[in-house]
Amino acid sequence: MDSIAKLTEMFRKFPGIGPRQARRFAYFLLSADSSYVSSLSTGINSLKKETSVCSDCRRYFAKSDSRPTCAICSDTGRDKTLLTIVSTDVDMDAFEKSGVYEGMYFVLGGYVPLIETDEPEKRIRAGHLTDLIKRRSKDGLSEIIFALSATPEGEHTASFLADYLSKLAEDLNFKITHLGKGLSTGTELEYADSETIKNALKNRE
Amino acid sequence: MDSIAKLTEMFRKFPGIGPRQARRFAYFLLSADSSYVSSLSTGINSLKKETSVCSDCRRYFAKSDSRPTCAICSDTGRDKTLLTIVSTDVDMDAFEKSGVYEGMYFVLGGYVPLIETDEPEKRIRAGHLTDLIKRRSKDGLSEIIFALSATPEGEHTASFLADYLSKLAEDLNFKITHLGKGLSTGTELEYADSETIKNALKNRE
Amino acid sequence: MDSIAKLTEMFRKFPGIGPRQARRFAYFLLSADSSYVSSLSTGINSLKKETSVCSDCRRYFAKSDSRPTCAICSDTGRDKTLLTIVSTDVDMDAFEKSGVYEGMYFVLGGYVPLIETDEPEKRIRAGHLTDLIKRRSKDGLSEIIFALSATPEGEHTASFLADYLSKLAEDLNFKITHLGKGLSTGTELEYADSETIKNALKNRE
Amino acid sequence: MDSIAKLTEMFRKFPGIGPRQARRFAYFLLSADSSYVSSLSTGINSLKKETSVCSDCRRYFAKSDSRPTCAICSDTGRDKTLLTIVSTDVDMDAFEKSGVYEGMYFVLGGYVPLIETDEPEKRIRAGHLTDLIKRRSKDGLSEIIFALSATPEGEHTASFLADYLSKLAEDLNFKITHLGKGLSTGTELEYADSETIKNALKNRE
Repeated sequence: MDSIAKLTEMFRKFPGIGPRQARRFAYFLLSADSSYVSSLSTGINSLKKETSVCSDCRRYFAKSDSRPTCAICSDTGRDKTLLTIVSTDVDMDAFEKSGVYEGMYFVLGGYVPLIETDEPEKRIRAGHLTDLIKRRSKDGLSEIIFALSATPEGEHTASFLADYLSKLAEDLNFKITHLGKGLSTGTELEYADSETIKNALKNRE
Repeated sequence: MDSIAKLTEMFRKFPGIGPRQARRFAYFLLSADSSYVSSLSTGINSLKKETSVCSDCRRYFAKSDSRPTCAICSDTGRDKTLLTIVSTDVDMDAFEKSGVYEGMYFVLGGYVPLIETDEPEKRIRAGHLTDLIKRRSKDGLSEIIFALSATPEGEHTASFLADYLSKLAEDLNFKITHLGKGLSTGTELEYADSETIKNALKNRE
Repeated sequence: MDSIAKLTEMFRKFPGIGPRQARRFAYFLLSADSSYVSSLSTGINSLKKETSVCSDCRRYFAKSDSRPTCAICSDTGRDKTLLTIVSTDVDMDAFEKSGVYEGMYFVLGGYVPLIETDEPEKRIRAGHLTDLIKRRSKDGLSEIIFALSATPEGEHTASFLADYLSKLAEDLNFKITHLGKGLSTGTELEYADSETIKNALKNRE
Repeated sequence: MDSIAKLTEMFRKFPGIGPRQARRFAYFLLSADSSYVSSLSTGINSLKKETSVCSDCRRYFAKSDSRPTCAICSDTGRDKTLLTIVSTDVDMDAFEKSGVYEGMYFVLGGYVPLIETDEPEKRIRAGHLTDLIKRRSKDGLSEIIFALSATPEGEHTASFLADYLSKLAEDLNFKITHLGKGLSTGTELEYADSETIKNALKNRE
């Protein structure tokens, strides 16, 4: 297999990329600036070395010698009584971008699968979460917010976690909340499903 | 113009129907059962005659000699302290189908347009609404729920109406609420807009 | 069931119309002009009475006392040596609109289904076609053009008909041709399937 | 800007990739196998070094010390009397995959833009093409096939090139052909545009 084919094969592993687009990526690189291609290659190669996993929230962040936690977890100005649980780094990015939350985060790293599985807690970072909660409890943690997608997997994970953390919530005296449900931006009433209408009615304000 | 062309022209006025589908409707009728075609023609012709506008909620309903109001408005078992305002009959159908609401309705018949207009209250059935509110007030009306789409037109209409009804709300002592906002069924956090996340966070439960 | 529901039910039989749009049609008629609604009802009712099936090409046309054939089949200026076979009236409309064909037509009224069936010739107007060919043969018919969609059903029907008419073609001395295949307007080479490229190469000019 | 952001920025330059997917690529690499990431980096870095432009057809191919031309141009079994002109490497891949062509190729590297431009011949590899034609003429070149997309840009390029090469065609005695037009796989007659029907009728067979 030649270099173009080999690289095409590798690009096919990228999320959401089929054979045709993978091949187009290879041709794109062939006709791109040498300096861009070389930066890209270096950037890919050094990405892991220059990135750490935050010891608190478990998200990826640009490594720094001086601290094991990311900019958000290190920010003393944020509200340590709130902990929002998200599934992935991009979910956390979306949440943070909304600009209305001042508390802390934890990234689960996935979902509990819908099909039964042994030790579902291992599919998400349940151990790390428990540790963090215990530490945060000393800083006055009072509420854990589940910010999971309103999809079957998200609901299932939320329900598993609520159960998993219930004893801890009692012992450490924090409450568990879920993101509110209702009409999201753009929802037309005519096309809204009954579940959404039910929630929107219950959460009317 | 021949009969097929004339009928095609008429079908083009149907909501969401282009020239090609209009023509296909005409050919469909040509090859359809005579009894079906004749029932359809009769059904269309008698629709208005057999249908009334409910004198309370203003929705269309099958005419009945005995009463001027629809089945919902005539149902003495429903909660008259609640009045939900929707834009159209189909919105009301969607709402009623969710099966969790036991109160009354009012159908605005449209939206207040986003571009400035003279007497915007005439674009919706504001006069009928005021009358109904006054009557319901005697039955103990305590809350009006705005069930409008989370679209710019829906928001604009809600904001206009809240203003329009504010004095009445004070005088007749009812509160105005809006359907709750947040994640709707299927929303993935990663793709949620900031407004939706903000609402979902505020309405967490 | 009330009038709105009954009419909604009837609109659901329209090609390509689901329950939601059917219902919207009913509400549209409720709020439409009375004169429009009445014309529509009349138009639907009289459509069949005012329309004939052309005794030659079998398409629908506005009935006329004086002749049993449609405007195209009655047009003495058209080329009777050519006969184009299409599946439906709308296919014939599309073909005629291209404005480059001066010959005659025949409308099959359907496709031969892909799954095996008894007497497939009855699924299309094979008998009428044979009769017409025999008559046209006396006017010098020299070529029958299959203008069928490049879909599995279209190909299957073309192949069935080619077989079905082969003996007649020999006896009456006409040739059978098929619409040319190749790049259609808008085809990007990158996305063209191998069959299309093969045909485009073979038919290069 | 941190490493994740920098890499995201670079992925955004990939064809068809927006900010969200670019970011997802970066997170994908963070969680991917180290050996895969390292191969990808190396593959990108060495791609240009291991790839040549074929001195005949101008497409990219895996470099080899021994020859300046790609596998197809070096294949003595192919028919040198035919030369197919395509716009890009991927177009050539699609054409070759159809498996019915045994001749040679030339890759233009783009299209002549629709808006007027100075020296349009410089937007495509017109000089290289002329050189190749002259050389191939000695091997008996008899036909040049334009295999360009049936899009406005493709048609415009074909028309420009036909003009550009007309003198040469006369001098060197080769003919110029275009891919055939007609129904492409899946075309439904009802939805076919008039141009396609016209071509399909003209190219009937």
